[in-house]
Amino acid sequence: MTRADPLETPAVIVDLDRVAENIARLQQYLDRHGIANRPHIKTHKVPEIAHLQVEAGAVGITCQKVSEAEVMADAGIGDIFIPYNILGVPKLERLMRLAARIRLSVTADSTVTVQGYAEAAHAAGRELTVLVEFDSGTRRCGVQSPHEAAALARVIARSPGLHFGGLMTFPHNAASDIFVRETRALLAAEDLAIECVSYGGTPGVWAAHERTEVTEYRAGTYVYGDRAMLKAGAMTPDQVALSVVCTVVSRPTAERGILDGGSKTFSSDLMGLEGHGLILQYPEARFYGMSEEHGHVDFSACERRPVIGERVTVIPNHVCPVSNLFDAIIGVRAGQDPVMLPVAARGRVW
Amino acid sequence: MTRADPLETPAVIVDLDRVAENIARLQQYLDRHGIANRPHIKTHKVPEIAHLQVEAGAVGITCQKVSEAEVMADAGIGDIFIPYNILGVPKLERLMRLAARIRLSVTADSTVTVQGYAEAAHAAGRELTVLVEFDSGTRRCGVQSPHEAAALARVIARSPGLHFGGLMTFPHNAASDIFVRETRALLAAEDLAIECVSYGGTPGVWAAHERTEVTEYRAGTYVYGDRAMLKAGAMTPDQVALSVVCTVVSRPTAERGILDGGSKTFSSDLMGLEGHGLILQYPEARFYGMSEEHGHVDFSACERRPVIGERVTVIPNHVCPVSNLFDAIIGVRAGQDPVMLPVAARGRVW
Repeated sequence: MTRADPLETPAVIVDLDRVAENIARLQQYLDRHGIANRPHIKTHKVPEIAHLQVEAGAVGITCQKVSEAEVMADAGIGDIFIPYNILGVPKLERLMRLAARIRLSVTADSTVTVQGYAEAAHAAGRELTVLVEFDSGTRRCGVQSPHEAAALARVIARSPGLHFGGLMTFPHNAASDIFVRETRALLAAEDLAIECVSYGGTPGVWAAHERTEVTEYRAGTYVYGDRAMLKAGAMTPDQVALSVVCTVVSRPTAERGILDGGSKTFSSDLMGLEGHGLILQYPEARFYGMSEEHGHVDFSACERRPVIGERVTVIPNHVCPVSNLFDAIIGVRAGQDPVMLPVAARGRVW
Repeated sequence: MTRADPLETPAVIVDLDRVAENIARLQQYLDRHGIANRPHIKTHKVPEIAHLQVEAGAVGITCQKVSEAEVMADAGIGDIFIPYNILGVPKLERLMRLAARIRLSVTADSTVTVQGYAEAAHAAGRELTVLVEFDSGTRRCGVQSPHEAAALARVIARSPGLHFGGLMTFPHNAASDIFVRETRALLAAEDLAIECVSYGGTPGVWAAHERTEVTEYRAGTYVYGDRAMLKAGAMTPDQVALSVVCTVVSRPTAERGILDGGSKTFSSDLMGLEGHGLILQYPEARFYGMSEEHGHVDFSACERRPVIGERVTVIPNHVCPVSNLFDAIIGVRAGQDPVMLPVAARGRVW
């Protein structure tokens, strides 16, 4: 891209060839190990990419909120898992309207959540599949022990209109398998099967086959990649599919360069990394600071330094919030014209 | 608000009475000291609120990007300052189209930027007002010395189609005044006047009258307020107009509570504060972590602790990115029905 081309920066460029390769690679890996693939669309929020994932062999997709699932269902995705405690009458009514038109499953980690599902399912006259979320060390949501998991599974199984779907966690480790086995043992007496064991996370995705209990995997970031995934060793530089093109808008000193993208473009997620992004043309540059509309870069370690107006390509630390900050991305594919893809499910917080 | 009401969380609630008070307070202060008010709309991105600011006496508004200014011009705002180095033919063409219908001014900190303005103004057959940005210590954009400022002012003044509008910086301090005076002295010989000296920033806004050189002030955050402004002492708790209502969706342990808002709701901007937000109902709670759709809260210091499904009200650390993450806010006013206000200028990064 040159300065004369019509591209306005900051712009999110997605290499759709790499996206296709990333989708195929994960699908083949999970197929080889007999693990169902249910990618998390939080990373891209683009229905066209969700369709690529399903066409490649995914059993369905994962959305984090009801409103995201609505966008994906509207776009024709027919099987969605929402691994979230969904509470409150308005959301539960929307959930059951969604259950009327697609295959839908959700999670719970409390009897309060389960009760809401049961009432909503009863009111709608439909069955809802509910998995129990357990805490594998994130210290976020999730029941804390196999005893709690089994107790909640029993509540779900006993609730008219609800179907106990299995167990879900994020991320996963050897202890997750032990948790699942202990829960299974507790439920064996009453003949309650754990149909699905759903693990998630891109950093640990290539270790999924080492888990003895997993039946389904939810990975999100693998589709694009970012600096955090490179650091985690989950992806290689030539697999990263999303980058942000910025313009150097100021060179106030010999060392400093200012980009036209800051936290409104990249988010402030550091992900434990040094600097806010990797500048491909200036890998030695230190992207040391951001304000909302400016990226602050120290080029002192670079032999060559950019001129004002020059474009640079940045790999973000965390790619998911970048998708959420842009209304559209530019998809490129070798030998084809770029396409504008709306990020249809961005900003869906409900 | 009760659990039965139709409000879906996370929701951004804006107290429009407080907004009106905040707008009036700043306007009165600046009027008293003879400083023109040009509020920065980055904080709200809502045309209706920009109109309140202009109706209260603002000379115009400040937008950070051309695309933000387009939204505000479309909504009828007639005087906009874009304190940004605007580069590249597509943006400059849009800029000049904007200059054809509103009073517009911009900044530059380099001859490259000035040259682009001059070419665009020539091509459009219009005059463009350009202020010189100087660095008052942010180490972001801006010329570094009065000599550089004067040299760039001369380039602007000599460029057909450009009008030298004055000096701009963010934030401000005593040294800013010295910078302005030295630049003025350098320009006095050639009879080049500094018409406008534009300072900005809410944290330092109430010290604006101590500055001897400022003629115009750009404040943004004062309209809503946030935890950072409380900490800076620029606002009091009863002036904070924006809050985020979240639902407690999980209570996995006796201490931990999980909210349905995370970095996709609040952004990850810490602003040097401890924790990610102040929970009004549980001021002792520690909002210690976030993932995209979950807020992680430690309630161990609270005597009373929330139940699952309970709603809490959170004051964000940094309010501007919250506006950018929501498509709409809910405006409330004593004695009136809530109104939904689209955040029309959100996501405008160009």
